Amino acid sequence: MKIKCEQQALAKALNTVYKAVSTRTTIPILKGILMETGENNTLKLAASDLDISIERTIPAQIEEPGSVVVSSRLFTEIVRKLPDDEVQIREENTAVTITCHSSKFTIVGQMSDEFPVLTEIQELQRISLDKEIFKKMIRRTSFSASTDESRGVLTGVLIELQKDSLSMVALDGFRMAISREMVSSDKELKMILSARILNEINKILSEEENEEDFILILDEKKAVIIIGNTRITSRLLEGDYINYKEIIPKISSCRVRAGRRDLMEGIDRASLIVREGKNNLIKLSVQPGQIVITSRSEEGNVKEEVPVHTEGEGLEIGFNAKYITDVLKACEEEEIILEFNTNVTPCLVTPEQSEAFTYLILPVRITSN
Amino acid sequence: MKIKCEQQALAKALNTVYKAVSTRTTIPILKGILMETGENNTLKLAASDLDISIERTIPAQIEEPGSVVVSSRLFTEIVRKLPDDEVQIREENTAVTITCHSSKFTIVGQMSDEFPVLTEIQELQRISLDKEIFKKMIRRTSFSASTDESRGVLTGVLIELQKDSLSMVALDGFRMAISREMVSSDKELKMILSARILNEINKILSEEENEEDFILILDEKKAVIIIGNTRITSRLLEGDYINYKEIIPKISSCRVRAGRRDLMEGIDRASLIVREGKNNLIKLSVQPGQIVITSRSEEGNVKEEVPVHTEGEGLEIGFNAKYITDVLKACEEEEIILEFNTNVTPCLVTPEQSEAFTYLILPVRITSN
Repeated sequence: MKIKCEQQALAKALNTVYKAVSTRTTIPILKGILMETGENNTLKLAASDLDISIERTIPAQIEEPGSVVVSSRLFTEIVRKLPDDEVQIREENTAVTITCHSSKFTIVGQMSDEFPVLTEIQELQRISLDKEIFKKMIRRTSFSASTDESRGVLTGVLIELQKDSLSMVALDGFRMAISREMVSSDKELKMILSARILNEINKILSEEENEEDFILILDEKKAVIIIGNTRITSRLLEGDYINYKEIIPKISSCRVRAGRRDLMEGIDRASLIVREGKNNLIKLSVQPGQIVITSRSEEGNVKEEVPVHTEGEGLEIGFNAKYITDVLKACEEEEIILEFNTNVTPCLVTPEQSEAFTYLILPVRITSN
Repeated sequence: MKIKCEQQALAKALNTVYKAVSTRTTIPILKGILMETGENNTLKLAASDLDISIERTIPAQIEEPGSVVVSSRLFTEIVRKLPDDEVQIREENTAVTITCHSSKFTIVGQMSDEFPVLTEIQELQRISLDKEIFKKMIRRTSFSASTDESRGVLTGVLIELQKDSLSMVALDGFRMAISREMVSSDKELKMILSARILNEINKILSEEENEEDFILILDEKKAVIIIGNTRITSRLLEGDYINYKEIIPKISSCRVRAGRRDLMEGIDRASLIVREGKNNLIKLSVQPGQIVITSRSEEGNVKEEVPVHTEGEGLEIGFNAKYITDVLKACEEEEIILEFNTNVTPCLVTPEQSEAFTYLILPVRITSN
């Protein structure tokens, strides 16, 4: 292999594909990045951890076609630190020579035969989606997925496209997040993607500044996202997702309209005193015209009063502060609605008049003292 | 104790004094911050780890004088997150109540009797020094001090004030840094201050934006720095410092003028390949018109050519890349002078025509292969 390309384009591509490199793998080839010459003077960079594969193509002058796998850490660091100039890359018997300006590196590469191919797919469906809407929906839901690898589909986000709307759902047994946006589509689809991978996708979508839409391709077991010159392939999570609509309470005995920022700051301060503890327990007392947040630990106690608009009966209810804070951080609305029934049933958080998001948070049982 | 003060002033003061809180101490009172009412409606905040003590005074409305010690972490976090408003602090039997807007915290305090007093001094000398010069000199030397606590005075920086100049010296056995600036003083002094503490002093001096000079007071065993409303007291390191002037080579067989940035970037790239290894060894080959930097490891090898101006004989010499990089980062000059004798004697780094800094770096013995 013998090619020439621009340092900036190469560094940017490596920065993107590096996100798929597995840091904990014991399989040496997965710590590498594949370089492969393509048609029409292009160079493909690719990395994969077997769950996700990221490829990016950049313009290059191909003098001799070929492919090789190089150490992702070393190669990325070298390219990042090279001057903004033309980079020559030459591979001979897996020894890779990188020349740029007055720098010359020779690094040990690996044969590309064993590099995993995750990208071959049998296209079942292909749709185009709005990047900003998709990013917002990831931000509003992915934090609610379980981080416990043994929880199967609960580590993922359910993505449902219907004729008139796109929904994302994530839940971990303590809270649930639903985001729904109006989109018009002539197709319907349903898939579960790992929340961890969706967060990486969110970052990559943000880096592609010039693109408004991206392409989503589905096969039996994989989803492919194509944006600009980047192609992300992810395995789908297999299994049945919980019938989430059933667990949303239909009625409430208490409805509160609150300023999101005031409530968030109050809860944030109240949790300072219990942060060292395990359960992060704060107590909300819903009263006419205000929510009083209290918490106590051996370090002391705190009382925060947040003015709100209340309808219905008051109640006292306990929460893990983190679960409420996560929700309040994930939405941008100035005002939100909290709905309660009893202090052992979930609290519902929604915007005032829209279906853009619905959060369900399970309370922590409190013992009155 | 019962006082009122502004949240912004209190948060800023806590941010400064927090730097003296010992994170690893087993003495509970040292994890605290002392609050003490003073005269003329002032509140003093103080923290100490027995080596350094930082105090800062802020305006406050004193309704009832008193003092108390509170948890530094918790109190600082609470104050930082309070709204920008008036804060009321009330202490009764070491229970401290903090009220601001609609927040009310009660935290457990401690009696202030046991809080260490490091600040009482017998003033021997008092001088005024230029803040920016002092900061620059710390930046240019402190990194060369030893970080090994068992090395005594070598963990410190020697500060020498003479009639016409101020010098700072730090060395750890592998490299030495000397910084010298012209200042006129009618006093002379000599002291050794911990490099770790000097770095904290550097930060605090940077935060005091409105002050140009600071006061340095010396007693037998302590140095006090006063800037604005902040007072830093530090123990001096006791012991004799090495006669550093003797180890500076007087002659050289090879003199190189190099662009600092080019050299730094070349060494930085060359060290990428050996970073995982232990000795970080790079080889410099000084040739007419250029320095060729090479390094190799099992990951590969690298060759960097840096154009320079050379006088005298060439040589091949090995270095720990970190020691050269530290030096090149610490000076701001565009061009620097490197002087060599043999590949087993120290390399001298200086600016072209000034005594502003002198660095000495011991080479690593290389075996030719």
